Amino acid sequence: MAVFDIISVIYTLYIFYMYLFIGEAFKTDLILENPLWVILAVILSFIRELSEQKLDLTRTYFNPAQIFILSFLTIIFIGALLLMLPKATQNGISFIDALFTSTSAVCVTGLIVVDTATYFTTFGQSIILFLIQIGGLGILTFASYFSYFFKGGSTYENQLTLGEMTNSQKVGDVFSTLKNIIIITAIVELIAAMLIFFTLNKTLIEKLSDRIFFSIFHAISAFCNAGFSTLSNSIYESGFQFNYTMQLIIIVTFVLGGLGFPIVVNIIKFLKHKTVNLFLFSSNSKIYKPWVLNINSRITLVTTFTLTVVAFAAFFILEYHNTLAQHSLYGKVVTALFGAATPRTAVFNSIDMNALAFPTVMVTFLLMWIGASPASTGGGIKTSTFAIATLNIFSLAKGKQRIEVFRREIADISVKRAFATIALSLIVIGSGIALITIFDPRKSLLNIAFESFSAYSTVGLSLGITSSLSSASKLIVIAIMFIGRVSMLSIIVALFKKVKHKNYRYPSEEITIN
Amino acid sequence: MAVFDIISVIYTLYIFYMYLFIGEAFKTDLILENPLWVILAVILSFIRELSEQKLDLTRTYFNPAQIFILSFLTIIFIGALLLMLPKATQNGISFIDALFTSTSAVCVTGLIVVDTATYFTTFGQSIILFLIQIGGLGILTFASYFSYFFKGGSTYENQLTLGEMTNSQKVGDVFSTLKNIIIITAIVELIAAMLIFFTLNKTLIEKLSDRIFFSIFHAISAFCNAGFSTLSNSIYESGFQFNYTMQLIIIVTFVLGGLGFPIVVNIIKFLKHKTVNLFLFSSNSKIYKPWVLNINSRITLVTTFTLTVVAFAAFFILEYHNTLAQHSLYGKVVTALFGAATPRTAVFNSIDMNALAFPTVMVTFLLMWIGASPASTGGGIKTSTFAIATLNIFSLAKGKQRIEVFRREIADISVKRAFATIALSLIVIGSGIALITIFDPRKSLLNIAFESFSAYSTVGLSLGITSSLSSASKLIVIAIMFIGRVSMLSIIVALFKKVKHKNYRYPSEEITIN
Ligand SMILES: [K+]
Ligand SMILES: [K+]
Repeated sequence: MAVFDIISVIYTLYIFYMYLFIGEAFKTDLILENPLWVILAVILSFIRELSEQKLDLTRTYFNPAQIFILSFLTIIFIGALLLMLPKATQNGISFIDALFTSTSAVCVTGLIVVDTATYFTTFGQSIILFLIQIGGLGILTFASYFSYFFKGGSTYENQLTLGEMTNSQKVGDVFSTLKNIIIITAIVELIAAMLIFFTLNKTLIEKLSDRIFFSIFHAISAFCNAGFSTLSNSIYESGFQFNYTMQLIIIVTFVLGGLGFPIVVNIIKFLKHKTVNLFLFSSNSKIYKPWVLNINSRITLVTTFTLTVVAFAAFFILEYHNTLAQHSLYGKVVTALFGAATPRTAVFNSIDMNALAFPTVMVTFLLMWIGASPASTGGGIKTSTFAIATLNIFSLAKGKQRIEVFRREIADISVKRAFATIALSLIVIGSGIALITIFDPRKSLLNIAFESFSAYSTVGLSLGITSSLSSASKLIVIAIMFIGRVSMLSIIVALFKKVKHKNYRYPSEEITIN
Repeated sequence: MAVFDIISVIYTLYIFYMYLFIGEAFKTDLILENPLWVILAVILSFIRELSEQKLDLTRTYFNPAQIFILSFLTIIFIGALLLMLPKATQNGISFIDALFTSTSAVCVTGLIVVDTATYFTTFGQSIILFLIQIGGLGILTFASYFSYFFKGGSTYENQLTLGEMTNSQKVGDVFSTLKNIIIITAIVELIAAMLIFFTLNKTLIEKLSDRIFFSIFHAISAFCNAGFSTLSNSIYESGFQFNYTMQLIIIVTFVLGGLGFPIVVNIIKFLKHKTVNLFLFSSNSKIYKPWVLNINSRITLVTTFTLTVVAFAAFFILEYHNTLAQHSLYGKVVTALFGAATPRTAVFNSIDMNALAFPTVMVTFLLMWIGASPASTGGGIKTSTFAIATLNIFSLAKGKQRIEVFRREIADISVKRAFATIALSLIVIGSGIALITIFDPRKSLLNIAFESFSAYSTVGLSLGITSSLSSASKLIVIAIMFIGRVSMLSIIVALFKKVKHKNYRYPSEEITIN
């Protein structure tokens, strides 16, 4: 299986290569020939692996968590090698910088050690764009796949032991999920690219092909929450800083990507249901109210909405006379919304990060750490984890033994998983800060901490120290980005041997905490 | 009840006052007249409140968590007023500094804004000593009282609702627990004081009465994990830095205090059981093995032992050529042991904190945050919380739904409480760091973070910025010390109205985490 895994990825990249070198008319007709089939090849080869597993269960060497991790590692390394091609950069790139850029793209982080705009050729930028798209789709696929198995009430960890994931009905479900993911991704990205295209000032980017490339690049980068930009100063670049319409389009795009596929599907289902009810059964619609919007969607939406409103208010008030001063009121609102949404769902910055007031930086820390929704292209400990942590505190305060919300009880295993996620995030971020400080003792602790949080939550914001880090620190940031992306819990699940619960149960005892 | 509460404390302090002003022979015969009866008065008045509650259940305004918090607040404020007495200081003290010192003493933290050795008179130092002793005993009492109710399998939060704590048998248990706490505290402190006394170099402290005062002060300060010292440079003071025997005595004393009363009682019971078995039933002792050492003791002892060994090794290796260089091998071992045990159980420093290598500082951060054992005089999130967090990660990694250890299952409510404890610690420490940085922007983030962690875990170590903080920051550190001491969970439990679980149960649902 391991050999097959590597061969299939190499095969895919061979197709990719062929396409790039033979298709010389590359620059101009990118929009017409959006190489969806290359991405499809990658994903299909991965599905073939899954079905392969089904056919030969006894010889399955890897569980899904291991496949997830290995495929990401493989793509990152091949991406790094691709970026080292002479055609990709203007003046060459070191392996560590290529690896950093590839990791940042595949993990849709957006931290950069070299300026994407000036350092890479359009060919290099296209490679980065492919890596972002593959990374984004890969995360959506795996995350939806994992979250699919959580639904049944049985845990993912148990599923692995029981081998239920290999029965054919579920593989069929995975296929249809995949198809939906690709369709939704393509539709959203296409619409976003077209809208961005129409907002562009023709005097800023003169060539039509460049405007098209710019639009596609930023649409994909936004939906995948990648944070890469072909502008040296991201959206803060003069000429784009005040293009509020484009910023609003980008916000909507990355919020959709950061909401996560299962929730978007659930919302679509909910809206459909509402519309149908409205037109057909408007008279007796009040009698039967099915629970269309599920508990996951509710928790995520409420948390996302609350965090965004609070962050927006904080940003607007704290920065009113600071970084927002140069904007009109409408501009202030858009820029504050951008600043409030960016740290969680992780895209471009439209302001100078170093000019932020200190309290805003602290709010950004918190927002980065919380991150986006589960099964999305965003990172962090996830809004659901944050919601469970908060609900847990309140239910303990009220003397409850069960955590209840929206007339549902949150399963104990979800609380444990949230707990582990938070604990592991602290371990990884803490170790990261400690190690970087050891290797770069002259950098300030604030900048290093910001970098670590940003890398772990695949946010991509920086206070500007990334490119001047030592090689050792760059490797550490690479590791943090990767761990943050695939999640430490997945890595640990992948590493440990599963234990079957036998027919026993030990007496349950309480532990003194305080 | 509120009025009664305040009156009883004022009455107690009236006795305390009378004693101090009438007993002019105060300095010399402190050892003979160890004013245990003053402390007794405080604790007895608190018990009277509890029994009062029993007599008049319908008119109980405060639950134990509220009494705990209010009594601590009251003692702190009265302590601050006492320290402002002209006789207490050489040259007077501001209210904020008095409040800081009082909070630090009552919460047995040990952070200082003025030098205890030179700023206060012996009278002032005695007040601090009383505050430490009252704070230490108060924590042991309340913590044992709270943990007592955890034992029954029912939760503390429910107990509050059900009012079970008011039945007479339980109040009787609280009385006997209290008696045991006072006896054990008195015995340990007396033995420690005598042992310290014999290690003292007569040339360093010439007067006998001063040597006695020094011994008592450090014995109480050590057992209560207070960290106050009558030496300007704590144990790092020349002449004491190389007194390894005294350091070993202090280590044993503060480790005993940091283990917590219920565990010490459990160990005594276990040793008794072993001894009895050894002498009486040595032939058939292998047939019946009762579980004398309970799960709480096992988890705490294993965690404490592991952390101490790891911290000792880290400290010994990292500091071998740095702060340990001037010591002999034996001295290196003792000093490393001191450095490894101090950040968790929170006492004196025997080395110059600012001279520590950076990795050692990071290890210290972690150790401070974890802190001591539950129901002890130490602070932090507690070893049991850390153990549950670790066990939770491993059991998820192994695909288990239950957390099992030592042939027992850890109750879900304990996992939730541990989760809440960690989440709340992050909120308090994070807010603390943010606020102090806002008020003292020139201080380095590392120093501020160290201060906040130290205050929250009532450790008392500092990188030296405490005294130069602004008044606003001092107030924040005071708040962190207080919250860290009474625990944020207790504060939240005290604030929220309890909700009774009615006869329903919502369907349980899993939440997607990743
Ligand atoms: K990002
Ligand atoms: K202390």
